[in-house]
Amino acid sequence: MTPNTVTTTQDALRDLYADWSAIMAENPQMSMRLFRAVFDEWHQPTVEPEDVTYREDTVGGVPGIWCLPAGGDASQVLLYTHGGGFSVGSASSHRKLAAHVAKALGVVSFVLDYRRAPEHPHPAQVEDGVAVFDALLESGIKPENITTIGDSAGGNLAIAIALALKEQGKPAPGQVIAFSPWVDMENKGETLHTNAATDALITPELLEGMIAGVLGGAVDPKTPLANPLYADFSGFPRLYLTAGSVEALVDNAQRLEGLARRAGVDVTLNVAEGQQHVFPFLAGRSEVADQELFRIADWYRQGR
Amino acid sequence: MTPNTVTTTQDALRDLYADWSAIMAENPQMSMRLFRAVFDEWHQPTVEPEDVTYREDTVGGVPGIWCLPAGGDASQVLLYTHGGGFSVGSASSHRKLAAHVAKALGVVSFVLDYRRAPEHPHPAQVEDGVAVFDALLESGIKPENITTIGDSAGGNLAIAIALALKEQGKPAPGQVIAFSPWVDMENKGETLHTNAATDALITPELLEGMIAGVLGGAVDPKTPLANPLYADFSGFPRLYLTAGSVEALVDNAQRLEGLARRAGVDVTLNVAEGQQHVFPFLAGRSEVADQELFRIADWYRQGR
Repeated sequence: MTPNTVTTTQDALRDLYADWSAIMAENPQMSMRLFRAVFDEWHQPTVEPEDVTYREDTVGGVPGIWCLPAGGDASQVLLYTHGGGFSVGSASSHRKLAAHVAKALGVVSFVLDYRRAPEHPHPAQVEDGVAVFDALLESGIKPENITTIGDSAGGNLAIAIALALKEQGKPAPGQVIAFSPWVDMENKGETLHTNAATDALITPELLEGMIAGVLGGAVDPKTPLANPLYADFSGFPRLYLTAGSVEALVDNAQRLEGLARRAGVDVTLNVAEGQQHVFPFLAGRSEVADQELFRIADWYRQGR
Repeated sequence: MTPNTVTTTQDALRDLYADWSAIMAENPQMSMRLFRAVFDEWHQPTVEPEDVTYREDTVGGVPGIWCLPAGGDASQVLLYTHGGGFSVGSASSHRKLAAHVAKALGVVSFVLDYRRAPEHPHPAQVEDGVAVFDALLESGIKPENITTIGDSAGGNLAIAIALALKEQGKPAPGQVIAFSPWVDMENKGETLHTNAATDALITPELLEGMIAGVLGGAVDPKTPLANPLYADFSGFPRLYLTAGSVEALVDNAQRLEGLARRAGVDVTLNVAEGQQHVFPFLAGRSEVADQELFRIADWYRQGR
């Protein structure tokens, strides 16, 4: 997968994942340093969104990138935590995706370069998210105008940040959005196996390494802020979940949806037929991704 | 080097190069695929320029990214060819740099994803540049309002495109800019050795591999469009060259300057004390890089 040959359809994401999988198979001892270089290509399937400017900043001590769509309401902020197993991915790899979402919703987003595992195990990532939330409040942003949002491990963080705020008796974000959230730190989901043949990236072995990195051998995999499947969702904000039907982690979103609904949360889950892990990465390239963002924008406005 | 720990001074570029050199030393058999993943990090030392939007496009059959600074004159175009030994680097790795230059000059830039070696040896890269130039003319841009510009191997291309246009009897670009141009396909520059201890990235061995890729074992390393040190510079456009004093390729810029001056070209060379290869990558982060862009903007306006 090179910029010269990037596929122009929704296959672009599957092709990139297949390519990464081939690299991992050929380099079984690949260093974390090279993992990070490879996963920073995650932006490639996403088309540059037009009419968006960017600004690097540090908010609450956490570096990141502001995505500022023309006409976006700067009083409404997406606090975006990127995916990558808590250990890879960056504000840079998710800049275009976070900008597409901000543009669809008519708001702005701040993509965090939170501290990554394994150098910084749980709960460093959650603490960084809470620090950004606190700083946004201090800067005058209303809590209901903040959305915590993320994908994969960053979807876990978007949920965990809201749970941590509740635990600390702080105001809640207005809503939470998670694309293909990865929350099961016990690594026991059924679709890990039933979708093994169709998911182009995720394997139990890959997740096992990332779990070891973020839990650091010291944190219980049932810790609610590390594994929200063990959390109390009562009083949780409106929640939008999306995942692809053929991905190995689809049951993470499904289990979260059940938990949240039973706790009385206003929760929406959309499982997109045939889509891979974090299919909104195809924003600007695939109708399915763009339609998902339109749906989320509708959901966002209805709740306000 | 991770986004979390990126140095905030002009050391950021040297540190990134030192890190890449360590990766190459640890992985002597690293595949071209991994080389490309690693070198796509080249954008990291560059701060996101503010007030610039982006648009993906295909111009003359060549994909790329438009960098559109607020208020930039869209009738003046920088045709930007990225560096990376003709084989790595991309529009994505050079987006921020090309945007900084466009912003400093008050114009727009188009960063080409030209066909890369070794899949596409010389002269594919030059042909792609000429195709974009032709398409810009067809779209109504005046030749004098086009600047061919690039860094490292892309600096070679910025010069070679102008030489190819002359050879084909076509109008010339108004000016040519090259940051740390790499043109010596015979790999015999003196500063390769005298600056070996201070250059954090470039070695004769690294270049040897890239030369083999772009020449494909078939092209003479003295071919003027592959190695402009053998070109006739008479009638060449205004030329701005810059390089770092401690880099292994500084004598490429110096030899080009001598050649161009003897041919009567209006040529400017600035060798920046203590700077590494393509130090304008530090735009937004280091005073030295920002001042260089100011100087280039002055030079650009004086010639118009």
